[in-house]
Amino acid sequence: MEFSAEQIAGLLGGIIEGQKDIKVNNISKIEDAQEGTLAFLANPKYTSYIYSTKASIVLVNNDFKPDKTISATLIKVEDAYKAFASLLEIYQQYKSNKIGISDKAVIEKTAQIGEDVYIGANVYIGENAIIEKEAKIYPNTYIGDRVTIGEHTTIYSGTNIYSDCLLGKYCTVHSGVVIGSDGFGFAPQTDSEFKKVPQIGNVVIENNVEIGANTTIDRATIGSTRIKNGVKLDNLVQIAHNVEIGENTVIASQTGVSGSTKIGKNCMIAGQVGFAGHLNIGNNVKIGAQSGVHKNIPDNSILQGTPVVPYREWYKTASILMKLPEMKVTIDKLKKQIES
Amino acid sequence: MEFSAEQIAGLLGGIIEGQKDIKVNNISKIEDAQEGTLAFLANPKYTSYIYSTKASIVLVNNDFKPDKTISATLIKVEDAYKAFASLLEIYQQYKSNKIGISDKAVIEKTAQIGEDVYIGANVYIGENAIIEKEAKIYPNTYIGDRVTIGEHTTIYSGTNIYSDCLLGKYCTVHSGVVIGSDGFGFAPQTDSEFKKVPQIGNVVIENNVEIGANTTIDRATIGSTRIKNGVKLDNLVQIAHNVEIGENTVIASQTGVSGSTKIGKNCMIAGQVGFAGHLNIGNNVKIGAQSGVHKNIPDNSILQGTPVVPYREWYKTASILMKLPEMKVTIDKLKKQIES
Amino acid sequence: MEFSAEQIAGLLGGIIEGQKDIKVNNISKIEDAQEGTLAFLANPKYTSYIYSTKASIVLVNNDFKPDKTISATLIKVEDAYKAFASLLEIYQQYKSNKIGISDKAVIEKTAQIGEDVYIGANVYIGENAIIEKEAKIYPNTYIGDRVTIGEHTTIYSGTNIYSDCLLGKYCTVHSGVVIGSDGFGFAPQTDSEFKKVPQIGNVVIENNVEIGANTTIDRATIGSTRIKNGVKLDNLVQIAHNVEIGENTVIASQTGVSGSTKIGKNCMIAGQVGFAGHLNIGNNVKIGAQSGVHKNIPDNSILQGTPVVPYREWYKTASILMKLPEMKVTIDKLKKQIES
Repeated sequence: MEFSAEQIAGLLGGIIEGQKDIKVNNISKIEDAQEGTLAFLANPKYTSYIYSTKASIVLVNNDFKPDKTISATLIKVEDAYKAFASLLEIYQQYKSNKIGISDKAVIEKTAQIGEDVYIGANVYIGENAIIEKEAKIYPNTYIGDRVTIGEHTTIYSGTNIYSDCLLGKYCTVHSGVVIGSDGFGFAPQTDSEFKKVPQIGNVVIENNVEIGANTTIDRATIGSTRIKNGVKLDNLVQIAHNVEIGENTVIASQTGVSGSTKIGKNCMIAGQVGFAGHLNIGNNVKIGAQSGVHKNIPDNSILQGTPVVPYREWYKTASILMKLPEMKVTIDKLKKQIES
Repeated sequence: MEFSAEQIAGLLGGIIEGQKDIKVNNISKIEDAQEGTLAFLANPKYTSYIYSTKASIVLVNNDFKPDKTISATLIKVEDAYKAFASLLEIYQQYKSNKIGISDKAVIEKTAQIGEDVYIGANVYIGENAIIEKEAKIYPNTYIGDRVTIGEHTTIYSGTNIYSDCLLGKYCTVHSGVVIGSDGFGFAPQTDSEFKKVPQIGNVVIENNVEIGANTTIDRATIGSTRIKNGVKLDNLVQIAHNVEIGENTVIASQTGVSGSTKIGKNCMIAGQVGFAGHLNIGNNVKIGAQSGVHKNIPDNSILQGTPVVPYREWYKTASILMKLPEMKVTIDKLKKQIES
Repeated sequence: MEFSAEQIAGLLGGIIEGQKDIKVNNISKIEDAQEGTLAFLANPKYTSYIYSTKASIVLVNNDFKPDKTISATLIKVEDAYKAFASLLEIYQQYKSNKIGISDKAVIEKTAQIGEDVYIGANVYIGENAIIEKEAKIYPNTYIGDRVTIGEHTTIYSGTNIYSDCLLGKYCTVHSGVVIGSDGFGFAPQTDSEFKKVPQIGNVVIENNVEIGANTTIDRATIGSTRIKNGVKLDNLVQIAHNVEIGENTVIASQTGVSGSTKIGKNCMIAGQVGFAGHLNIGNNVKIGAQSGVHKNIPDNSILQGTPVVPYREWYKTASILMKLPEMKVTIDKLKKQIES
């Protein structure tokens, strides 16, 4: 789709300097823009680019005064960055405007479907499942029996949600996510075989949660694995049975949290971190990438390493670790000198 | 569904103390139970909870004698823990009682389907595939040509099993698992491009194997990648081409095993471990979390670290690693003292 | 299917020594071959196996002269290894000869479908998507609106490709891959909640790229996440938003690349490596397994460790790291000796 400078200026309450009828069909960065796209200039560091940019339209602040000729059409607004951000949101909403129920979806008769939902082709919705109003379920997704999907929640294609799991409102679940698979619980038997421990709990996802592609969240053995309001999980994260993740905690890609560990609120966990099981991690904790967490962690800690230590300690040691061979030579020499 | 105290006591051969007709619809832990649920008391450490629990029914041992009034209805049995475990299994079986073939499944005519199977909506079953009796295949699963799914094996939704792979009896495969994708084999060419090495083997999964959500198991270049009887793989595990995993070995989440490595039986491999290719790992080996295994490992080893060393060595070093900056200061001081 | 020695000799231009009409239905290694299979002998180290192999047919070099009786039928060719490799390819092509459009696929009317494609059951193809000629799309795959799949590209079952992503020619995408999920971008708000940054870019996959099972590639915030010609990604790899991977770079399983990092061409990245965001990694770089890359890396570097250092340094330190407790004892002793 295409928008004219006039339409965009209208949306943003801006003033046009240039061609009213020039059109754009995409958004770009000012430093590598192509013709037919819209860019913005907010940071003065980037000002030089406005004289050479190929963008057809550039959003600028009201107080911007060019030194030289500019080929792009300008739209002047109070705050170019905010105006650009709101355009992005309008564009995003435009692109996710799916609605209606495909006749190629398979929906059990006992399921309850709210108003103005989107349910794509090849979706399966189980017995007594509840899909609340304005939820969007993309094609090839599996929604098990008695699952609830809250209002305005979007489930992208190819997601699998096992029976009895509950998802809140305004969540986004990306493709390939698995919610509610069995926890990894096996009781060793005398003959070195293992017997499965039944996993009869569920997963509860609260509101405003985002879950990245191919992330897995196991159901609780008993009770609920719980992902609280505002949590953001990146791709390929592993959340084991009976884990709890506190409000607004953010976890980057490929991190794993073992069974029954509780992580507090407002934590920032980097990528490829591992948490042992049955731990209590406080609030506002920051953990660096690839760390291994093996013990309880108090509030406000900043940690790194395997096993984790305070970040400053880790940094000091990591900085001189490669001097170890040299240190060994020195020690051996000193020993000889003293012995002789 | 709801069960009365009378029904449960009947199932377990227990004696009721309290209301015969009180009903429960879920199972919980005694310390955080809600009304309408059943809990159990076996460990004396938890005895205090029985006087305050909100559980409607509590299973207790025959010899349990309360000190104070208890509001919950009690069911007395010989062994409360075992009775609870058998209830869990009954509940689990009740919940996985799916049967029948959906008319929205797509099954090639040459496929052979056994008796009493469950095949859900949007399942695809390829040419000459064999689904043995009482197997369960949940919706949106792909079963390639000439695949065999053994008796009583359950394949959860959205699983992908490539052609020619063989799965045994009583296995459980969770959602999003990929079995039989091509091994990562490419021959470098003189122009720094790579040419794919055809991957014409398959994957053989023996009996009583459980495979966690979104785990990937590549087919062999030639021959079979083999997962032996009783193996348990957690979520997001990577098994490369021509790997063999021995009987009853357990591998936790996000661990990766590179091509042609053989792991023995009864091993316990923690999470986020990496194995290099072409290794022989013995039987009864234990490897700690986030370790890197780069060499052959004899039977009964207990190892940790990157690269792995005996656990005790690793522990000793890890315990003092953060003293390294201090050690360096001391060495430099000693050096000066001796030189002067 | 079965092939006779005569058919195979005809294909390869070889000469038969033994039974013309003996048949094989599979391929194996000479050292563990079963009856009814074909093996090859090229490396003289394996010569002893030819006298005991159970393979029905063995490809050998023209100049091979047996010392003893051989029960297998031989086919003599100029280069047994090359002849075997070309047989593998013929076999692979035979097995992937799917063609035609399933009437159980759901294809939007505005999609353009080329000639001689394969589109399996339960595939969804969105509005204005383009599937070029001879592409193969296996069952249960999701192709979003305005996606292009290039000529001769194969998409295995259960793959999810979000709207607006572009895939080139002769690519192979394995099951469970997610292409085009939202980048992990959230702007912190004053109340410790996060606001999603719209992710309106796409993913561009060039030609001859192979992507392993359950790998995830996020779309760019603005612009494109780009995987260049000839790149090979293994299973469970994470590629974040706005990343670029250069030509013919190979990345092994479970490695993660954070947002906006650019990796050069002809690099070899081992498994379970983590890259921080916004880095520039040069060409011909090699990174060892489980490394953590936190800074820009010049061309031709060979690195290992967390954080990465030149491989030789890492190796020297890793070799003596377990001597640290002993070193500490020595230092403490020396200190006492000097003080007294």
